[in-house]
Amino acid sequence: MLANDLLTRMEQGDRRALARLMTLVEARPPEIYAVMSRVARLARGTPRLGITGPPGAGKSTLIDGLIRLLRGRGKTIGAVVIDPSSPFSGGAVLGDRVRMQDHAVDPGVFIRSLGSRGSHGGISRATMEVALLLDAFGMDEILIETVGVGQTELDIMGIADTTVVVLVPEAGDTVQTLKAGLMEIGDIFVVNKADREGALRMAAELRAMVEQTPSPKSWSAPVLLASAREGQGLEELLEAIVGHRQYMSDRPEAEAFRRNFHRRQLIEIILAELGMRLDANPAAEAIYERVMAGAQDPYAAAAELLTDPARLAELLRLRR
Amino acid sequence: MLANDLLTRMEQGDRRALARLMTLVEARPPEIYAVMSRVARLARGTPRLGITGPPGAGKSTLIDGLIRLLRGRGKTIGAVVIDPSSPFSGGAVLGDRVRMQDHAVDPGVFIRSLGSRGSHGGISRATMEVALLLDAFGMDEILIETVGVGQTELDIMGIADTTVVVLVPEAGDTVQTLKAGLMEIGDIFVVNKADREGALRMAAELRAMVEQTPSPKSWSAPVLLASAREGQGLEELLEAIVGHRQYMSDRPEAEAFRRNFHRRQLIEIILAELGMRLDANPAAEAIYERVMAGAQDPYAAAAELLTDPARLAELLRLRR
Repeated sequence: MLANDLLTRMEQGDRRALARLMTLVEARPPEIYAVMSRVARLARGTPRLGITGPPGAGKSTLIDGLIRLLRGRGKTIGAVVIDPSSPFSGGAVLGDRVRMQDHAVDPGVFIRSLGSRGSHGGISRATMEVALLLDAFGMDEILIETVGVGQTELDIMGIADTTVVVLVPEAGDTVQTLKAGLMEIGDIFVVNKADREGALRMAAELRAMVEQTPSPKSWSAPVLLASAREGQGLEELLEAIVGHRQYMSDRPEAEAFRRNFHRRQLIEIILAELGMRLDANPAAEAIYERVMAGAQDPYAAAAELLTDPARLAELLRLRR
Repeated sequence: MLANDLLTRMEQGDRRALARLMTLVEARPPEIYAVMSRVARLARGTPRLGITGPPGAGKSTLIDGLIRLLRGRGKTIGAVVIDPSSPFSGGAVLGDRVRMQDHAVDPGVFIRSLGSRGSHGGISRATMEVALLLDAFGMDEILIETVGVGQTELDIMGIADTTVVVLVPEAGDTVQTLKAGLMEIGDIFVVNKADREGALRMAAELRAMVEQTPSPKSWSAPVLLASAREGQGLEELLEAIVGHRQYMSDRPEAEAFRRNFHRRQLIEIILAELGMRLDANPAAEAIYERVMAGAQDPYAAAAELLTDPARLAELLRLRR
C-alpha cells in the first residue's frame, strides 16, 4: 500500500514522504483512518504552540523569528501556517512569507501552508492532522499560526497547548471592546511592533485586564513587548512559553484539556466521514432534488430523515 | 406548545416573540425541526446582503449607514451582526456599536448579534437560521455581517445572495498577496475611509484585478469608494447592490446557487443533530474514555466504529 510505504519512509526521516502524506491525508482516501492511527501512535505528544492574533499583527515575522531562535538552540521545528493566498489571511507582506521560505532548505524545519477551504471544520481538522504528522516525524517544536477571528481562534484552544496572542498598538480600542473572549484565549500576550506609539499603554491595559480576569487555568498570562522584525523580545517570549509549559505540566487542567481534545477529535473525525458519505450518496439525490427544487424545505426534509432512522442509517451507509 | 405560540405571535409582528424564537432555536430543543420548517415556509426568499472584510475596515459603520439609508426609503431591515464581545470581532469602536443600538427603538429594524462560539459550523448555522427568522418576520432587507477570515468568509458565499467586501486603503499590500480568494468572494468591492491616502490607488488595483479574474458568475464586480462615517458613497453602494440583484435574477447561476444552498443546509442540519447525539450519548462514554485515557488513538476508535455500522448507528440513535 502506498500509504504504508510513505509512512515507513517518513519514519526514516524522508521529508518528501512527509509532504506526500500530508497531501494524501487531505484527499481523505478510505485508508485515512489506518494511516492516521499509525501516525497517532508514532506521535510523541510534542507540545503545540499556537500563534494567533488579528491580521497585520506581525504573526509571520514573529514565527520566523521564533524558528531562527529555536534553530540556534539546535531544535527541529514543524510549523503549520496560513496560506497567504487565502482571503484576508492576515495581510502578511509578501517579504515575510518569502523570508519564511528560506527555512525550506533547512532540513530541521518543515513548514506547511494551509488554505481556508473545505467545509465541516475542514481547516481545524487539517491543522490537527498536519500537526500530528509533524509530531510523528519527530519535530522538537510544533508551531501553529491561526488568524484570530470567528471560530478559528477558539479552535486553537483545542489544538494548541500554549496560545500566544499577538497584538499591535494600533489595535488599542479593540482591546477595550473585546476583552471577554480575548482573555480566555491567551496564555501569553505579545504587544508586537513595540517601538510604535501606544505600545506601553496597551501592555499596561492588557496587564490590568489579565489581573481582573479570573483564569480558568489559574495561570496569570504574562504580557510582553516585542519587535519581531528587529528580533527583540523573542528570547523573553520563548522563556514565557517554557514557563507556561512547566506550569501546566503539573496542573490537572492540562490533563483535562488533553482528554477533551481527544474526545472532540474522535467526534469530528466521525462527523467528517458521515458528512462525506451523505454528500456523495446517490441514494440521497432524490431528497436533495426535492429540497433543491423547493418542493420541501430543508428542515422538513431533515425532520423526515431523523424520524426515519432506518432510512438515514442507509444514507449514511450504516446498514447494507 | 411554546414554540407554536411564539411562531403565531411572530407572524402577527411581535418582536419579542421573534427574539425569543431566536434564543429557542439556538438552544436546539427537539422541536427545532418543526419550528424551523414552519419558519422556512413563512419565509419569502428575501435577498440576503453579506458585508464582509478584515477587522477595522469599518463594516459596522457601513451597515449603520445602509440601515439609515434604507429606513429613509421606508424599508424594514433585519441584520445579523458579529457580537462585539467575541475576540477580534473586527475592532469596531464601541461608538459604532452603540450607534447601531439606536436602531433598537425603531420597530422597522431588528438587529441580532451572534457570538463566535459553538462547534460544528455553529456560527454559520446560527446565522442561516437567524436570517431565515428575519425573512419569515417579513423584513424587506436582510443584512449579514461576517469577519472575512478563515472559513467564515467562504461561508458567506452560501448564505448571502450579494456579498460586499469592505477594505481600507491601509490594507494595500494585503490586496497584492491575497487576490485569489478575495476576488471569488466579492460581488461588490468598497474601499472605505476613502479620504485616506492610497484609496484611489487601491481602487485602481482592485479594478485591474477584477478585470483579470474571470468571474464564475460572469458578473464584473464594481469597485466603489466610500466614507461610511460621513455617509458618502452609500447611495452608490445601494445602487450597485440593486444592480447585482437584477443581474443575478436573470442568470442561471442564481438558481444553481440557491439549489446548492438548500442542499448544503440539509446536510448541515443533519450533521449538527448527529454531532449532538454522539456527544451526548452515554453509551459512547466507554469509547470516549478509552480515547481520553490514551488507551486508543482517536483514528483507531473512529475506524473501529466506522467498520461496525450497527454499533455506530446505535450511538447515533438510528436504531432502537
